[in-house]
Amino acid sequence: MSVQGVHALVRRTHEARVLRVLREHGALSRGQIATKVGLSRTTLSEITGDLLSRGAVVVVDTDAARRLGSGRPAELLTLDPSSGQFLGVDLGHTRVRIAVADAAHDIIAAGHAAYDADTERARQLEVAFALIDRVAARTGVSFRALQGVGVGVAGPRPAPPEIAVPFGARFGAPVIVDNNTRFAGLAEAITDGPDVHDVLYVRLSDGIGGGLVVGGRLVAGADGMAGEFGHVTAQPDGDPCRCGKRGCLETVASVPAVLAGCARRGLALASIEELEAALRHHNPIAAAVLDEAAAAVGRVVGAAALVLNPAQIVIGGRLPRSAPELVRRVDEILAGELCPIGGARPAIRAARLGDDDGALGAIAALFRQTPLLDGYPEPVR
Amino acid sequence: MSVQGVHALVRRTHEARVLRVLREHGALSRGQIATKVGLSRTTLSEITGDLLSRGAVVVVDTDAARRLGSGRPAELLTLDPSSGQFLGVDLGHTRVRIAVADAAHDIIAAGHAAYDADTERARQLEVAFALIDRVAARTGVSFRALQGVGVGVAGPRPAPPEIAVPFGARFGAPVIVDNNTRFAGLAEAITDGPDVHDVLYVRLSDGIGGGLVVGGRLVAGADGMAGEFGHVTAQPDGDPCRCGKRGCLETVASVPAVLAGCARRGLALASIEELEAALRHHNPIAAAVLDEAAAAVGRVVGAAALVLNPAQIVIGGRLPRSAPELVRRVDEILAGELCPIGGARPAIRAARLGDDDGALGAIAALFRQTPLLDGYPEPVR
Repeated sequence: MSVQGVHALVRRTHEARVLRVLREHGALSRGQIATKVGLSRTTLSEITGDLLSRGAVVVVDTDAARRLGSGRPAELLTLDPSSGQFLGVDLGHTRVRIAVADAAHDIIAAGHAAYDADTERARQLEVAFALIDRVAARTGVSFRALQGVGVGVAGPRPAPPEIAVPFGARFGAPVIVDNNTRFAGLAEAITDGPDVHDVLYVRLSDGIGGGLVVGGRLVAGADGMAGEFGHVTAQPDGDPCRCGKRGCLETVASVPAVLAGCARRGLALASIEELEAALRHHNPIAAAVLDEAAAAVGRVVGAAALVLNPAQIVIGGRLPRSAPELVRRVDEILAGELCPIGGARPAIRAARLGDDDGALGAIAALFRQTPLLDGYPEPVR
Repeated sequence: MSVQGVHALVRRTHEARVLRVLREHGALSRGQIATKVGLSRTTLSEITGDLLSRGAVVVVDTDAARRLGSGRPAELLTLDPSSGQFLGVDLGHTRVRIAVADAAHDIIAAGHAAYDADTERARQLEVAFALIDRVAARTGVSFRALQGVGVGVAGPRPAPPEIAVPFGARFGAPVIVDNNTRFAGLAEAITDGPDVHDVLYVRLSDGIGGGLVVGGRLVAGADGMAGEFGHVTAQPDGDPCRCGKRGCLETVASVPAVLAGCARRGLALASIEELEAALRHHNPIAAAVLDEAAAAVGRVVGAAALVLNPAQIVIGGRLPRSAPELVRRVDEILAGELCPIGGARPAIRAARLGDDDGALGAIAALFRQTPLLDGYPEPVR
């Protein structure tokens, strides 16, 4: 190989590394890129100058808003956003939600559609595919350069023919499939930044599930079923649960359980919105039922926290969004449960993400830039 | 460098790799060594022939006993056992146990000494050091080539000046310190072989603790306090616990709790040996109290298993050794707690190791040949 040939090869290798970190991280400043690829600022400037002139990379913004100090704000570079799309799908019990991210990691489209609770999987997929087509038509998003599809589903990780194969056939892209609440936990854990390695996430919605990050890794469990907080016994003599047990956390602290608890005490509420209104008006029945739900969550999460010693506990889902006071009450119960480990009490917070959390986590599982996914299965084609 | 020089260097490099796998794995056949270092059988034979002739490596045994099929049994090679020692120490609440392994990973000495439950740390160390001297004198073991000291302690991982510094100063070797029950869990998990990546270990003795392997890694938790099964609430209106809570698992299923439970029902027992005898004679009070303890363990472990989805649950410690029927009863309760995850029910077994488990786990943490310790702190000098 000639000297020129070697130089061109080295240059292409550097270029490929720059493109890879931008693909994985979205938008970065030149300084951040230089650190991540291990190149000098001078070499990097040559490479980014060339990429910018070819339109492969664009300047999206300065990070002025994030810089508190003085100095000239740094330009942020990203891949041409249209050069790649990532599709996240959350197939829940009663609805599907989707989100689409571009190569800059910005969410460029999202949507949702409902189906009945007993809809079979094939029909759920039809609804999902129709939703994706509709959102694409409405937003003008094309999937010409689709990089991957992440699909979260209610329940355990399904076999490939059920989800991965039909999505792969439809989109011709790699697919990763896992529990949707685990994906939601992943998305929440990422919002805590790279220094939080032990996170316990519980989602209180129509059902109750959870996600765990232990030692800096998302946990699936031996059979892909880790995080079943919903069926931990919270009240030994409690109501029958759909799982066959009695008094599962889901029979006390899910949205339907709280509404049923209110009805049993004479407060008929048709929806979570009506619960929200009742709590806003300090209805004592609603407050008491919510308090009981929070206490059950605190006991169940407290037991898990004694076993796992997390740094962070996150309470997510529809219930705490309508009843944010629940998180404070869970924290009080936790304090009592965790007194044996005194100083090691984890921080507790409400989830930051909304109903899109599962779809966003599925996209995060495609980006794979987080070390939380070390050792986790790769998307498959 | 001359061709001879290069050959000698390559040979030394191969030799170093062979010595390293023997140091990490104890005794191995030539075939196993060849696989692990990635050398051909011919090259390896030359190297082991040379090491054997120099006495650096010795033939310890054939693996005939482990080979069920036909064929000539393979010789096992190890480092000269006297070429290195590993010291494991388990500093419990009321006693210290030690074990010493040689370079072939055989336990060549062990011993224990008691102290009062309120003995302060400095005095515990004096007792431990005196015990180590006594065992060395009795067995003729020398620590001339001590490769490291592993120390398990009751409670959370202590700061270096408390344990690591005095042991390092005394022995001039690297020291690793962690919770003794976590080390016991590590030792038990290793006995399940390399394919079991999710293990939940609970030890029922004077106190109750646990150890977790999640996704193939030993778990310490954010503050080194993971595994606190003993203080999970098992009976909300139960007895006060030394931790300040009520009805902790330790107040129901530790050895002192079971003895106290028998006494409360009119059966005075002075020791675990007397409990063992009472159970052997089918004493109904002893059986009922044990049953209650097992049910509490099943509930607490069941909740943890719903959250973690382990492949294996191990029940260890003094109580199941004296009352092995406890494990079957825990399994029955588990079946009820885990019915929501049906097919994903973990295997449950009694611990294989005895009271030396903590010291053996501390030695395993020194060997570091297990991937369970990936990402775990290294011994420090």
